[in-house]
Amino acid sequence: MDAELHESVEEAASDIASMEIRGAATIADAAAEALAAQAEDSTADDPAAFRAEMRAAARRLRETRPTAVSLPNALRYVLRGMDGETVPDLRESVVESAREFRRELDQAQENLGRIGANRLRDGDTVMTHCHSTDALSCVEAALDQGKEIEAIVKETRPRKQGHITAKQLREWDVPVTLVVDNAARRYLDETDHVLVGADSIAADGSVINKIGTSGLAVNARERGVPIMVAAQTLKLHPDTMTGHTVEIEMRDEREVLTEDEELEIDGETDGESFAIENPAFDVTPPRYVDAIVTERGQFPPESIVTLMRELFGDQQGGEPWEE
Amino acid sequence: MDAELHESVEEAASDIASMEIRGAATIADAAAEALAAQAEDSTADDPAAFRAEMRAAARRLRETRPTAVSLPNALRYVLRGMDGETVPDLRESVVESAREFRRELDQAQENLGRIGANRLRDGDTVMTHCHSTDALSCVEAALDQGKEIEAIVKETRPRKQGHITAKQLREWDVPVTLVVDNAARRYLDETDHVLVGADSIAADGSVINKIGTSGLAVNARERGVPIMVAAQTLKLHPDTMTGHTVEIEMRDEREVLTEDEELEIDGETDGESFAIENPAFDVTPPRYVDAIVTERGQFPPESIVTLMRELFGDQQGGEPWEE
Amino acid sequence: MDAELHESVEEAASDIASMEIRGAATIADAAAEALAAQAEDSTADDPAAFRAEMRAAARRLRETRPTAVSLPNALRYVLRGMDGETVPDLRESVVESAREFRRELDQAQENLGRIGANRLRDGDTVMTHCHSTDALSCVEAALDQGKEIEAIVKETRPRKQGHITAKQLREWDVPVTLVVDNAARRYLDETDHVLVGADSIAADGSVINKIGTSGLAVNARERGVPIMVAAQTLKLHPDTMTGHTVEIEMRDEREVLTEDEELEIDGETDGESFAIENPAFDVTPPRYVDAIVTERGQFPPESIVTLMRELFGDQQGGEPWEE
Amino acid sequence: MDAELHESVEEAASDIASMEIRGAATIADAAAEALAAQAEDSTADDPAAFRAEMRAAARRLRETRPTAVSLPNALRYVLRGMDGETVPDLRESVVESAREFRRELDQAQENLGRIGANRLRDGDTVMTHCHSTDALSCVEAALDQGKEIEAIVKETRPRKQGHITAKQLREWDVPVTLVVDNAARRYLDETDHVLVGADSIAADGSVINKIGTSGLAVNARERGVPIMVAAQTLKLHPDTMTGHTVEIEMRDEREVLTEDEELEIDGETDGESFAIENPAFDVTPPRYVDAIVTERGQFPPESIVTLMRELFGDQQGGEPWEE
Amino acid sequence: MDAELHESVEEAASDIASMEIRGAATIADAAAEALAAQAEDSTADDPAAFRAEMRAAARRLRETRPTAVSLPNALRYVLRGMDGETVPDLRESVVESAREFRRELDQAQENLGRIGANRLRDGDTVMTHCHSTDALSCVEAALDQGKEIEAIVKETRPRKQGHITAKQLREWDVPVTLVVDNAARRYLDETDHVLVGADSIAADGSVINKIGTSGLAVNARERGVPIMVAAQTLKLHPDTMTGHTVEIEMRDEREVLTEDEELEIDGETDGESFAIENPAFDVTPPRYVDAIVTERGQFPPESIVTLMRELFGDQQGGEPWEE
Amino acid sequence: MDAELHESVEEAASDIASMEIRGAATIADAAAEALAAQAEDSTADDPAAFRAEMRAAARRLRETRPTAVSLPNALRYVLRGMDGETVPDLRESVVESAREFRRELDQAQENLGRIGANRLRDGDTVMTHCHSTDALSCVEAALDQGKEIEAIVKETRPRKQGHITAKQLREWDVPVTLVVDNAARRYLDETDHVLVGADSIAADGSVINKIGTSGLAVNARERGVPIMVAAQTLKLHPDTMTGHTVEIEMRDEREVLTEDEELEIDGETDGESFAIENPAFDVTPPRYVDAIVTERGQFPPESIVTLMRELFGDQQGGEPWEE
Repeated sequence: MDAELHESVEEAASDIASMEIRGAATIADAAAEALAAQAEDSTADDPAAFRAEMRAAARRLRETRPTAVSLPNALRYVLRGMDGETVPDLRESVVESAREFRRELDQAQENLGRIGANRLRDGDTVMTHCHSTDALSCVEAALDQGKEIEAIVKETRPRKQGHITAKQLREWDVPVTLVVDNAARRYLDETDHVLVGADSIAADGSVINKIGTSGLAVNARERGVPIMVAAQTLKLHPDTMTGHTVEIEMRDEREVLTEDEELEIDGETDGESFAIENPAFDVTPPRYVDAIVTERGQFPPESIVTLMRELFGDQQGGEPWEE
Repeated sequence: MDAELHESVEEAASDIASMEIRGAATIADAAAEALAAQAEDSTADDPAAFRAEMRAAARRLRETRPTAVSLPNALRYVLRGMDGETVPDLRESVVESAREFRRELDQAQENLGRIGANRLRDGDTVMTHCHSTDALSCVEAALDQGKEIEAIVKETRPRKQGHITAKQLREWDVPVTLVVDNAARRYLDETDHVLVGADSIAADGSVINKIGTSGLAVNARERGVPIMVAAQTLKLHPDTMTGHTVEIEMRDEREVLTEDEELEIDGETDGESFAIENPAFDVTPPRYVDAIVTERGQFPPESIVTLMRELFGDQQGGEPWEE
Repeated sequence: MDAELHESVEEAASDIASMEIRGAATIADAAAEALAAQAEDSTADDPAAFRAEMRAAARRLRETRPTAVSLPNALRYVLRGMDGETVPDLRESVVESAREFRRELDQAQENLGRIGANRLRDGDTVMTHCHSTDALSCVEAALDQGKEIEAIVKETRPRKQGHITAKQLREWDVPVTLVVDNAARRYLDETDHVLVGADSIAADGSVINKIGTSGLAVNARERGVPIMVAAQTLKLHPDTMTGHTVEIEMRDEREVLTEDEELEIDGETDGESFAIENPAFDVTPPRYVDAIVTERGQFPPESIVTLMRELFGDQQGGEPWEE
Repeated sequence: MDAELHESVEEAASDIASMEIRGAATIADAAAEALAAQAEDSTADDPAAFRAEMRAAARRLRETRPTAVSLPNALRYVLRGMDGETVPDLRESVVESAREFRRELDQAQENLGRIGANRLRDGDTVMTHCHSTDALSCVEAALDQGKEIEAIVKETRPRKQGHITAKQLREWDVPVTLVVDNAARRYLDETDHVLVGADSIAADGSVINKIGTSGLAVNARERGVPIMVAAQTLKLHPDTMTGHTVEIEMRDEREVLTEDEELEIDGETDGESFAIENPAFDVTPPRYVDAIVTERGQFPPESIVTLMRELFGDQQGGEPWEE
Repeated sequence: MDAELHESVEEAASDIASMEIRGAATIADAAAEALAAQAEDSTADDPAAFRAEMRAAARRLRETRPTAVSLPNALRYVLRGMDGETVPDLRESVVESAREFRRELDQAQENLGRIGANRLRDGDTVMTHCHSTDALSCVEAALDQGKEIEAIVKETRPRKQGHITAKQLREWDVPVTLVVDNAARRYLDETDHVLVGADSIAADGSVINKIGTSGLAVNARERGVPIMVAAQTLKLHPDTMTGHTVEIEMRDEREVLTEDEELEIDGETDGESFAIENPAFDVTPPRYVDAIVTERGQFPPESIVTLMRELFGDQQGGEPWEE
Repeated sequence: MDAELHESVEEAASDIASMEIRGAATIADAAAEALAAQAEDSTADDPAAFRAEMRAAARRLRETRPTAVSLPNALRYVLRGMDGETVPDLRESVVESAREFRRELDQAQENLGRIGANRLRDGDTVMTHCHSTDALSCVEAALDQGKEIEAIVKETRPRKQGHITAKQLREWDVPVTLVVDNAARRYLDETDHVLVGADSIAADGSVINKIGTSGLAVNARERGVPIMVAAQTLKLHPDTMTGHTVEIEMRDEREVLTEDEELEIDGETDGESFAIENPAFDVTPPRYVDAIVTERGQFPPESIVTLMRELFGDQQGGEPWEE
């Protein structure tokens, strides 16, 4: 029955799968838009058929990136809004629900930024890890509030996304000190806040974020520096409410060792006893995080589950796209 | 009076200054050899002149690398052995003292390795940071003892000396997993010992070593993994007995950001508010170290001062090369 | 007026008091069933009388075991469901409420098991303390998910319920290593999760469980091993919401020292200065627990109070069986 | 339009500003009463005008003490209760809402005391810091429950409010040991609970209280003594839900150094390099607090944000008195 | 050449091997006595032969119990005292050295007891683990000093040596509370000192003692209770100075599970996936120990290596009995 | 035989007893001087009589202040120097030994200051507790080295010796911020070193110092600020080598509560259930101290026992003044 799917859905699915559409918010936005298109152009002639069509569209989108947390969050939001006894009513409810989702999404980062900025004081120095637009939105809002902020930017091997962060901060005229990841502990003495984003957040309060976050957080606690995680509610991982753990992706070893470098190290790599491991993320336990800042307020990591229950319900029923 | 200095002294001084002679043990060896040459060929005709000449030679060598801890340790050892009432007696004592120093030096790493190896058990996995021949000698001795050892090697930005470590371990057929520094905490769960060297060790038990060591040690303690520092007594820093702190060298920022990368980040670096900081070392407090392994046995870091007093005395008198 | 009580109520009350009916879930089930019987056979002829009768039945059951946490939870659930203006309506609502409670109860452990199993990975080793069917249900569900699980089983003096746990795990073909309680810290290095049940859970996030749990949790934290508590919501202790502490039962000293042993130790025990103390439970503070797994999802211990408020309300009004 | 404000509002505003009305509960009570008076005597002839008048009154009161946390909590409660389509309905709703607020306020401390008392056991010793009627209400209720309680009272420099606490406890015949603040750690070994009040409580679980609280809490944790904070929900700081930090007031330096003392220290104080700093409060992170006791139950500090959301909503809309 | 060995040596060796002679001090005493007998009755006719004979005797004794730490300590002491140019001189020096060793040994526990007793105050409560005469000697000396001491005695599974400790303390009229090992943390709140012995002590400050010691120490630190280890210098393990680790003996599984119990648990034990592990000792890191009390004074565990160097030298030469 | 004591001894004894002579160094100096006077004017006619006379003089001085740690240290030093076969030789040795002791004493604080100053960097801020000339000598020497130092001075209730410290620092033009003791944790964020003196130091590495030191040290560790104790070796407490604990003096309660204040608090103090406790000192465990700075170098607290053994020997023989 998937043949009925609207071309917008197919296109979105294909672009998400190929990573042409990437980034948690962008993916979520595209998925909501595709569901709206499916609803608008649906030719279903009875409510059951319409519902089945929407669920099929959601499933199609869902399966493109099984580990993307924002994708099911978007689908769930839109399908939960589907309500009515007639096809026109159902259609309108889906379209409206998608519109609302996208409007909230559009505002979320700005709202989050304002809330995070309130935690920063004039003259504070933040230490960043990786590149997170949620985290940067806090700095931007603080600058808008007229605060002076300085930054110590960890380069964040292997992909050195710290360079992107540094570039953005420089554009905002934030004084930046760039350091290698190994130098972090030394510069914590000059840091007022460790400020990071999140790839996803689990119901037990754990923060899944770019590899190196947990080691930084442990050191920040040891040095007495508060750790602040900026994450839209889009990053809250509903599956974790029922105990599921977040699978950590292992990335290409070429990010760690380029071809030239490898030669230098071991001409006879035999693939057996020389391995490169390149996990993309790690897990920071809640006891090393002081606050998770979302667009709906700040939370100690131990109570983020309450926000998840508010947003997602009990997670005991199945997903709305399951038949 | 420095004109009297033997050409071996001048050569050694010049090579140490230009870093042609480098590495703690190599520098110490060259300095002891130069003092012996000075003593052997001395034309001093009275004991006072001979002593003055030796002190001058020591001073000349000393000033080449004011921060090298092994250099004054070598000079001190040799000059302390200078004893006698006549020039021939003095000469012989210096030559013998230098010979003894060099012989001990020659044995030190091997002895250290055997002691460190005793802490490792068959099947253990070590995590390394940077490249340290003292640390590697422990692995080598463990292999000699017939133990199977595996290694998780941190690449150690900015200079990636972990590659040298990995290469060496591969030559010994040690299974190696190479990871970026950010991944360390994740791999501590598979690690039995963190094994590092030291640039120098202070009387308060602090370990000065390659930047990133202290952050690793804090995480290792948090994960319940013991931390073992391999360091010949040559690395014990006598000045710290009288409270002196060890100056941390700031290295070239090009190690952090190559010219190409810099362009990518900020075309308009103005030298004012964009800084790169590249400290070479950091300081690990003794409470995060389980054992310092030297060629004279293993010590909790809190009692290394006792060994320093045994080797260097009370450090209340001045140095033997001061007049 | 207690004379009106249905014989099912009297029987249940008597069996609970005599501990013929025991175990948190069994007691709760029996209480709900008894209330339903009372409702079904009630001869009350006006709503007020019916309500009074139901409250009396609840009180009768309540007083049998003042410290059993599951008992008031069952009574509260059923009486809260009592709703209607006429006796038939009231009756039906009670019967339905009891049925629903028992249905949920029936499912709770299985649901909890699935959620807990999600936290376990294929190949993990759990360490158990005492015997808890809630904890074991997590292992069982993990096995059902096709995961291989191993277990280190603490014998759990004084009553050695670890033997029951070992026996059950062996029946499921789980490889078991049995150790004395004193050996726990040593085996934490081979443990991926400490997995325990709970006698009850307090609003401040404390876990009351078999004596020895808190000492194990402190060591697990020190060794970096996560601690997971499996507890149906039946174990959440409503009184603790208003600050009440949980009384720790002192059990028979014969569990600690059998008659034979005592003779061996001290022939002249005078009962004055030789004491045996045998507390049944201890209290683990929330900072040593990583997750509480219930049939309604997993929670950091610090937010279990939110679930309690959801289930039990504010606890500011009195209990529904009070007049 | 502020000219329309009722004289009760003006009086209350003036008395709050001049600190004739002081204390969190007293301020809140006066504000609610003033709003009721405004509503009762309002001459507004249409609902819009009435609403505008009430908002103006609230704003007038609000601006008197921008940092008082109980004031906006009172105004918010009353204005949220304003409901109706006609002026009479609106009036009645405001009057009723104010009455309810004041009734709850009146009961809050007593309820809180009972809940806090439940945490204390017969024979316990509490250590107090500063003077807090919320904290003392817990002791009072425990005495009412027939428990024997002893107290170690820190004098609490600079203003020595510990003397007031000691006096109150003595009136209740509680055995008191008065110690200087420096002696606290030593007496923690004899302490069963650290019991303090709060100036305000933040959404991230931090407790803002009299300077010295955080240092005491850190030591109590180190000594294994639980820390209990008694605070009515009036002290929960809604602004912190959106990340705002609580400004710490710097008080008169004469509290630290009286004129006589100053002369003794430095006759030539030049105001430049000799400073006295006298912060009124400090911030205790949630990880050093075991329970926050409110009139609505006890909470781990990490979940107090849930109670704030329940009481204050999401805080994303503006305040009810904003136009 | 071992045929020359004195029958006292053979007897001692045989009795030590068969464990007829057991206990660290008893073994050491017997070994010293045997060496003296060998020296006294030696028929060696030249100094070299005498020396060879003594070394052979030492080797014979040494190999009986390779893991007993007191045995080589005794042999080392006596052979180090062997001095002289003639057989009579050598003989006398050995006999005198053995006598001195035995005299010191005889005094050691009493001296240790007095020193340990000085750490206890009148009215203190100690918690004991296992049975250690060194630890008990501290209590005995405290009683002799007129102090009142109470004891909480952990039963110490699997062998319940706590019963022996309880019996001894009762004979001294010390009030005893016997608890299971699991109850330890709860009773730490009533404990002033954790007081244990040691099987051996390593140069890195680790304490090897009866299984369960390390878990107790971690909890004692968490509860703020100081941990005191009573150990004669005989227990200092010289091999650990050169990094050797102490092998932990695995004892008979019948100590954990008696035959009857096993049947109850698993009738079909197949020896493959059901294991009982029964390690005799565990290792407590120095950071969880406050003081090691020896007959030569008390030491923080981190400086016990200094005492070892004083007593045993640098351990770089071989053992005196090696040829 | 005490009648033979020299009037200088009697005077010194009397002045020490009456506290006319006070302060650790001043007492020690006076005692050494008195012993020298006794020796110089001795009329003893044989060596045994001379020795007896010196021991009697030492005993006389010793008993004046049983808890002063510097007094026995002085007596021990001088009497240990007593050597010779004739009265003139003995006399001269005592006089010389006393002179040497006093000369070292005279230099000790200056040497200590230089060593401590080396730990401070230009621009550092120290936090002080109480008033210690040893601690201040470090600041003075740092100023002499041309470093800029700032100070946060805790007032140090009850006696506010912080005022003396502040006054002294102001005289040296050190910028001072005076705070109440309760404010310490807040200002640790601006502190580079906590710098305190010591009343005495124990063999287990504990630091006995003015009440409040241990609480400050615990907070400094939590905030990541190093703690440095400045203490001449005169403060090392030999009795603690054999386990003796240091008795903590309870001082006059009028220091805590003046007569006026008391009236204000409780008009009916009955002396039974209202107590003021005013301990002079507390004990900081070694794990909260980073370095002890003496005139003989800096030491981790865990190895101070090594210095004590070097200075005082094994403490197993009795004191030299015992007969």
